[in-house]
Amino acid sequence: MAVAVCLFALTAARVHAATDPLPSWNEGAVKTRIVSFVQAVTDPAGKDYVAPAARVAVFDNDGTLWSEQPLYFQAIFALDTARAMAARDPALAANPALAAAAQGDTKALAEVIAITHANTTSDEFAGRVRQWTTSARHPTLHRRYTELTYQPMRELLDYLEANGFSTWIVSGGGVEFMRAFAPEVYGIPSERVIGSSIKTKYEVRDGVPVIVRLPEIEFVDDKEGKPLGIHKAIGKRPIAAFGNSDGDFQMLEWTTSAPGPRLAMIVHHDDAVREFAYDRGSHIGRLERGLDEAGARGWSLISMKSDWKTVYTPQQ
Amino acid sequence: MAVAVCLFALTAARVHAATDPLPSWNEGAVKTRIVSFVQAVTDPAGKDYVAPAARVAVFDNDGTLWSEQPLYFQAIFALDTARAMAARDPALAANPALAAAAQGDTKALAEVIAITHANTTSDEFAGRVRQWTTSARHPTLHRRYTELTYQPMRELLDYLEANGFSTWIVSGGGVEFMRAFAPEVYGIPSERVIGSSIKTKYEVRDGVPVIVRLPEIEFVDDKEGKPLGIHKAIGKRPIAAFGNSDGDFQMLEWTTSAPGPRLAMIVHHDDAVREFAYDRGSHIGRLERGLDEAGARGWSLISMKSDWKTVYTPQQ
Repeated sequence: MAVAVCLFALTAARVHAATDPLPSWNEGAVKTRIVSFVQAVTDPAGKDYVAPAARVAVFDNDGTLWSEQPLYFQAIFALDTARAMAARDPALAANPALAAAAQGDTKALAEVIAITHANTTSDEFAGRVRQWTTSARHPTLHRRYTELTYQPMRELLDYLEANGFSTWIVSGGGVEFMRAFAPEVYGIPSERVIGSSIKTKYEVRDGVPVIVRLPEIEFVDDKEGKPLGIHKAIGKRPIAAFGNSDGDFQMLEWTTSAPGPRLAMIVHHDDAVREFAYDRGSHIGRLERGLDEAGARGWSLISMKSDWKTVYTPQQ
Repeated sequence: MAVAVCLFALTAARVHAATDPLPSWNEGAVKTRIVSFVQAVTDPAGKDYVAPAARVAVFDNDGTLWSEQPLYFQAIFALDTARAMAARDPALAANPALAAAAQGDTKALAEVIAITHANTTSDEFAGRVRQWTTSARHPTLHRRYTELTYQPMRELLDYLEANGFSTWIVSGGGVEFMRAFAPEVYGIPSERVIGSSIKTKYEVRDGVPVIVRLPEIEFVDDKEGKPLGIHKAIGKRPIAAFGNSDGDFQMLEWTTSAPGPRLAMIVHHDDAVREFAYDRGSHIGRLERGLDEAGARGWSLISMKSDWKTVYTPQQ
């Protein structure tokens, strides 16, 4: 009898290990809530069933799908790229904005972003980003930036896709920056990446049309901009939303303010050992209103420290 | 022998009828070109094979998927809606713009569009459009507007989707106007409708968030705007494009200016009996540069009169 029970338990554990779609998540309330939600909306006989076309799940990127410290990675890309450009351009090398931006001067950083992001065709810009993602490494973690994506969140993306969801990135980051790696890294195609944008211009050069990036902000996909960006690109309201900072507040609010089953979660950076620990008062990824109101609004906090077995994707 | 040949021919005709994915298209160069293109890009062993993720096909709406005479249907919607609103609002009824717009005054029409399209939530606006599409009828053709869609083009959409393409609407029409009927009428989900837009605002009213439409143009998805709109929403270049007027010129140019197999076609309104006949000099759907350059650019003209067996979808 004891042997039989033991065998049964072993078999069950093996079956569980083989089929657990979220192996990097510790068992607990958060993981249970995710799995229950997915089971509820995919059960055709259940009262909470949602048709596949309406299974829209939105994800912030910086701090939700990959790290964002000590600076948004796109800002590091701008600094790295400006340095590389300056090595071939003495006038740029003499520009004081480069040194000031590296020291954290916000206004100088905006100038460096303009220098590296505009007055180029979209194709050239995408090439610049790809070149950087394959070569640059994080200053303290010494990994490629695309290897600083969160393994539990990548499992979550796959799990939702396998259950008929369409997953979308909705980020304050630049849309063309993210599209250069999102399809390969997250399995999310370019048409499901929503982000901030600068103005563009269609131009025919010697008979060949190009899209030129202009040094002027068009749309900021942050705070109130997130529901607007979602509405403009998708045209329907998500049923699940994942963020990490107060920049995601309105996205979670918009997602959870309609009838029917809804899921909203905030990645809480509470793991100083394996990643970074910050929330209120952080200069990046500040989380204050979200912490205060999550409970009352039915949003869950994902504790990096307790809910995740591993943080980063394995190095390639 | 004669009987056997005859039987064989009959059987072949039956098989053909049963499997022809484009039954409303007459046999000819245009239909052959469409079918050859689809076969070429879906043949994994062929030199022109294109992976499903890159099989992006874009369609103009007005004049390409449904009629656009005597006025863009969205303008008729604005006039009809303004009249209905005026019946309940004496101040609006006294507004001279209503009568002037009905007489074709462009400036007055812009005012009527602002009155009927802005200062409303997105949900209210979608309801207004749905109400109109189910009740209003075309002034001379006496059908519902959604029954003035072209049967051959609907077959083409289905044929492409069945072959792993993603089909997109890219129209000068308003994106929220089209989304109210495109999923049901064309089988194209809201996230694959690109159009012109007005600015919007996120607002929380008594704890309930809404998206409010503002009376200010944000983006005009016409001419040079079409490749920009495609690039912004999709992030990859289409391999097939269908339009009908010079407003589609840049979309076809952008689609066909990259290496690899490409297909571009222009619906030519040359059927005064079954639809309308117009091209150069028309006040709506003017086609001039497209007619002049189609041949040299390898774009095909679809003759409504010769290439289509039927024009409109059967009435429901």
